[in-house]
Amino acid sequence: MEDQVEVVARAFVEHYYNLFDSNRASLSSLYQLSSILSFEGQSIIGADQIQQKLSGLPFGQCQHFISTIDSQPSVVAGSIIVFVTGSLKILHEEHPLKFSQV
Amino acid sequence: MEDQVEVVARAFVEHYYNLFDSNRASLSSLYQLSSILSFEGQSIIGADQIQQKLSGLPFGQCQHFISTIDSQPSVVAGSIIVFVTGSLKILHEEHPLKFSQV
Repeated sequence: MEDQVEVVARAFVEHYYNLFDSNRASLSSLYQLSSILSFEGQSIIGADQIQQKLSGLPFGQCQHFISTIDSQPSVVAGSIIVFVTGSLKILHEEHPLKFSQV
Repeated sequence: MEDQVEVVARAFVEHYYNLFDSNRASLSSLYQLSSILSFEGQSIIGADQIQQKLSGLPFGQCQHFISTIDSQPSVVAGSIIVFVTGSLKILHEEHPLKFSQV
């Protein structure tokens, strides 16, 4: 059971950041109307608004490198919670940024 | 609604790390039989096991300093999800460690 959660978490993380790095606008498919993105203290609600926020971030082409993935079954059956840390390399920027996301 | 979530999150975070820094064994009161702690790749299940893990960490007196708290209502009504970053000062250690916890 635990293992299955980890497998799904890893696949989801790979899919999410592949989309982020190759076609950021399509990330909206991974959010719902009721989704909330907490981003550096700001609260953004709904798939469309979240997609606009992510597409409007002040950098273009980028590449995410994953360092750690922690996952657990969530309180709702069939859902999981995933905690990711890694670094973010922005095109033409020398130094990668560290990031974490839940 | 959003504001109330943030107020509860802040109060919980303050309570959690106050207990961690003053009486680590009492943290078990904040976990349940079904709670899971994912700690640096390890999965620990149940309040007693989690308390033993936290009490057995290889440092004694410590102090947590909170940098950011992000919170959202969770999928289950009345529950919230909280993401904390900060630093951890261990007694007699010169340099604080960075930490993050969900």
